[in-house]
Amino acid sequence: MNNIFKPYYAVIFTSTQTEHIEGYSEMAIKMEALAKRQPGFIGLESARESLGITVSYWDSLEVIKNWKQESEHFFAQQKGRENWYSWYHVRICKVEREYQFLRK
Amino acid sequence: MNNIFKPYYAVIFTSTQTEHIEGYSEMAIKMEALAKRQPGFIGLESARESLGITVSYWDSLEVIKNWKQESEHFFAQQKGRENWYSWYHVRICKVEREYQFLRK
Repeated sequence: MNNIFKPYYAVIFTSTQTEHIEGYSEMAIKMEALAKRQPGFIGLESARESLGITVSYWDSLEVIKNWKQESEHFFAQQKGRENWYSWYHVRICKVEREYQFLRK
Repeated sequence: MNNIFKPYYAVIFTSTQTEHIEGYSEMAIKMEALAKRQPGFIGLESARESLGITVSYWDSLEVIKNWKQESEHFFAQQKGRENWYSWYHVRICKVEREYQFLRK
């Protein structure tokens, strides 16, 4: 745990997919690369079984808003609602505390 | 999006496993069932590929602290550090805003 902790933000994106996932993987790769180039991007973690969870980390609420409205990302979100997702849930969170374990 | 939104908390638990995962699945099932019986538990979402992400949702920071210290869970955490996890990262977050999409 850091002694000096600067709060940052997490976007928890949980989703289930339809059976029509043509083009999804390519778009996911593209959007991850694009997210990493946004100002204020900190990191991204992702895993999918039947449920998909992607958590992205950001400097501020403002950069999260900018990312939501970024034009290629906006198009990807539309495609997601039209084709790929049967359901999703987005939670914008403030990371207040954190700690890690690393095996020696 | 709810008009009246009551903030709640998310614990984002990301992890990678060792090759010694004997007993892990049984413990994960047991801990999920135990979490669901804790006061203040709201929900839990989980997916694992090479990276595992489990997000649990709680009413308050206090119930999160209680859950961390719950005796069977405390034992499970020890087992996790001794055997199952090569690395983990825990983030305690306040959910400030959320929205959902559901296919019609």
